[in-house]
Amino acid sequence: MLKVKILNIDSGGKPFVFLNDKDADELNITASERVTVQTKKKITAIVNISSIIERGYLGVTDEVRKILSLKENNKIHLDIAPFPKSLQFIRNKLSGKKLLYPEIHEIIQDLVDGNLSENEIAAFVTALHIDKLDLDEATSLSRAMVDTGKTLSINKKIIIDKHSIGGVPGDKTTLLVVPIIASEGFTIPKTSSRAITSAAGTADRAEILMPVEFTTNSMLRILKKSNGCIVWGGAIELAPADDIFVKTEFSLHIDPLLLPSIMSKKKAVGATHLVVDIPTGRGAKMKTTGEADLLARDIMELGRRLGIHTHCIVTFGEQPIGNTVGPALEAKEALEVLMNQKNIPDLIDKACNIAGSMFELLGKKNGYSLAKKILESGKAEQKMREIIKVQGGNPFILPEDISIGKYSLHVRSEKSGQVLWMENRIIVEIGRASGAPKDKGAGIVFNKKIGDSVEKDELLFTVHAEQLYKIDRVKYVISTQAPIGVGKKSDMLIHTITESPVVERTFEIDR
Amino acid sequence: MLKVKILNIDSGGKPFVFLNDKDADELNITASERVTVQTKKKITAIVNISSIIERGYLGVTDEVRKILSLKENNKIHLDIAPFPKSLQFIRNKLSGKKLLYPEIHEIIQDLVDGNLSENEIAAFVTALHIDKLDLDEATSLSRAMVDTGKTLSINKKIIIDKHSIGGVPGDKTTLLVVPIIASEGFTIPKTSSRAITSAAGTADRAEILMPVEFTTNSMLRILKKSNGCIVWGGAIELAPADDIFVKTEFSLHIDPLLLPSIMSKKKAVGATHLVVDIPTGRGAKMKTTGEADLLARDIMELGRRLGIHTHCIVTFGEQPIGNTVGPALEAKEALEVLMNQKNIPDLIDKACNIAGSMFELLGKKNGYSLAKKILESGKAEQKMREIIKVQGGNPFILPEDISIGKYSLHVRSEKSGQVLWMENRIIVEIGRASGAPKDKGAGIVFNKKIGDSVEKDELLFTVHAEQLYKIDRVKYVISTQAPIGVGKKSDMLIHTITESPVVERTFEIDR
Repeated sequence: MLKVKILNIDSGGKPFVFLNDKDADELNITASERVTVQTKKKITAIVNISSIIERGYLGVTDEVRKILSLKENNKIHLDIAPFPKSLQFIRNKLSGKKLLYPEIHEIIQDLVDGNLSENEIAAFVTALHIDKLDLDEATSLSRAMVDTGKTLSINKKIIIDKHSIGGVPGDKTTLLVVPIIASEGFTIPKTSSRAITSAAGTADRAEILMPVEFTTNSMLRILKKSNGCIVWGGAIELAPADDIFVKTEFSLHIDPLLLPSIMSKKKAVGATHLVVDIPTGRGAKMKTTGEADLLARDIMELGRRLGIHTHCIVTFGEQPIGNTVGPALEAKEALEVLMNQKNIPDLIDKACNIAGSMFELLGKKNGYSLAKKILESGKAEQKMREIIKVQGGNPFILPEDISIGKYSLHVRSEKSGQVLWMENRIIVEIGRASGAPKDKGAGIVFNKKIGDSVEKDELLFTVHAEQLYKIDRVKYVISTQAPIGVGKKSDMLIHTITESPVVERTFEIDR
Repeated sequence: MLKVKILNIDSGGKPFVFLNDKDADELNITASERVTVQTKKKITAIVNISSIIERGYLGVTDEVRKILSLKENNKIHLDIAPFPKSLQFIRNKLSGKKLLYPEIHEIIQDLVDGNLSENEIAAFVTALHIDKLDLDEATSLSRAMVDTGKTLSINKKIIIDKHSIGGVPGDKTTLLVVPIIASEGFTIPKTSSRAITSAAGTADRAEILMPVEFTTNSMLRILKKSNGCIVWGGAIELAPADDIFVKTEFSLHIDPLLLPSIMSKKKAVGATHLVVDIPTGRGAKMKTTGEADLLARDIMELGRRLGIHTHCIVTFGEQPIGNTVGPALEAKEALEVLMNQKNIPDLIDKACNIAGSMFELLGKKNGYSLAKKILESGKAEQKMREIIKVQGGNPFILPEDISIGKYSLHVRSEKSGQVLWMENRIIVEIGRASGAPKDKGAGIVFNKKIGDSVEKDELLFTVHAEQLYKIDRVKYVISTQAPIGVGKKSDMLIHTITESPVVERTFEIDR
């Protein structure tokens, strides 16, 4: 029996306990080992050994305190944890075995319950990445991720959703698609992510216009009123396993759970129909249409197995969507398009293609024209203002109400020619250097895109920042790498390698 | 600038820092991210976010305090760490690339310096396990592990060493081989490990007879006096990377670094000649002689590349070596054999085969007979007492001086027949349940081994323990699984499976 000492340490989700070194020795426990701590509930925690803890006491983190409802000096029982069964299943995966549903469920449950160490999670994710997961395993993972999280019970026969696999900066398409679809009376329970590796996630963009953090119950109330919503998925705990996987995948630059992650979240909101956007091209996640088509095939088969009617569209992903990157700048651009104040052809075309495809999946004819008509008629704007109101924002918001960082940097072309390429990775790096996504008003406005003619000294893009020193960071990034290539159409050299190259790969984990 | 707050937390080798949540937010740092902390030295540490840390303070663990020589309230500078270059090389390995020496060196250096997170280490080890490492990578890893640790400079032309890949309980062969070899005037700088997953490591066994923890300088002094030594490798920091890898491999039950681990340590002590023992059979690491021969081929090629003349011997590994398992019991048995008080045929045969093979590798003829003669003549005992003396033990120690746990459990056969099999995994589990390796006097003495005839109620083995309740733990293990199978030679059934089996695999990481 040990006495509880509450440490108020928040160690980021993982339950930790701290033990005096002599107690640890006596109990035969070594650092990093796991123990079960038991009151009425029982959890498995990772042991830290520390001489600041007095003998006879067990230091517990805030997570452990909450889960076990502990108070200072509570008596508590400690045991060396038997290894979780799921660890054996992970080991089986490491030795090349295919996993069955009950095994995957056990792994995901233990993951969500905090019973697996970072090592073990990383090994599992790495094995899925290297050995690949087949569609059976992807299906099991999707189902297990749904079963171990919250789900939304919307009382509708048809629930439609959209998703983009991401990887292209400036993609504010969702802010147009949701009101277009909802204005036709369809239910679209859109959950979005915040940026992790990008300069803005859809939740970051939407938050400029309205609150986006809701419980599942509030989300249901919103949908009842407006058919559509744009809320942050992180707040409603759909497929919480995914948030844990993302942490591991982030630093490793691997993303084997992309499909289960997408599909589990769609299943959790009860989607019956789904359109998935696959941006494709140099600088996007999918480099070729061949790759994109193979991914589409897997997504659609996974949809079939999960009972979701799924279409995919492959879109041009070699440059940002529209002319802006950064939460406020993008929200502003989307609002301007909804209000028909500005014509942003690629953004409008992409939104109408996605919304059109969704309409056709639901049995409507000429989806593209229908979507375009809704947008041009102002019905999409009207619906968006309704959603903004229901979610607690200002329904009368105008583009000029959105504040943009007051510091700016104008970047001009050093020569004349044509824009030959734009480099998404460097554009994202500039956006993040400017302060996005944390500084909402930071970002980039492009004056030129691929194919545009450029004169020497003509403005290529403007960077906005909320803090002056971030403009310096942007200058540094631009001094080392070019985000836009201007030249003659006949220019052939991409680059010369004279010493062992440092590989900097695009990696986008936002989903 | 933050002020240092020293936390006296020992988190098991990894440098951690603690930051107030508001400071973290302002600095744009999230939990688990890494930062560089700089005084005169610079280290990378993993961030924990905690509200107990006051604003403006940086809580540091004992590791961080020591490395940076920090004092309370020192001012300190913090930066978000740029990702280590080695992480990109790990990512390359995850995408199936073969790694070159400079890349592997960078990974190992960062590993030793604590610049890689547990995730990243686990992903690397998993990738090596699944994708396999080829001999080029194994060579690079061996070299890098030598280059990032201490090395021993013994001023001799010929330095011979032995190693066993492990996996068999009761293997006290080294306690015979070292004095046999050293008594002929050869230098054998034997470093050994303590048990991690087994019931006794050679360092645990040797420690019953003499101290085993020395610095490299003391080890050199010992070798000058006695030619041979048996010391704990952990104390002298040869290939410290390996200790870090072992922690990861342990819970995952994978061991891709076996070869670099062995060979780097041999290279680090300056071995010019080496014999590697590969115990083989059901219940050992290598199940078949085919597998063992393939491993031998790799070990020998790796030896060639590292400039170490290497022979391998494949030995019978389906049951414990000799009749005892547990540190004190094994040391006692080895001493009895050295003193020719007891005839333990398999132990003597194995020791003479290894020592003999070493002699022949060094150009001597009839190695086996030479080894046996040295053992029978008492020269090996004499040499061992010399080593014990030089290492600071009692050179007059007798078997009866070695104390064995006072509690015991006699296990008798439930039927008559022949011993058909012994299960190493369960024997190790019983040994550990009895208290070994921490309780030195705990362990098992076998009265019967494979092939022996057994009467009903005849004694199979005796378990010794230092604490009575551990006898109960042993009883529980024995009640669920049998360590020895007695039956008729014609008995065919191994076992019946009626429900989804729980796989319990042997895993032995001691090396």
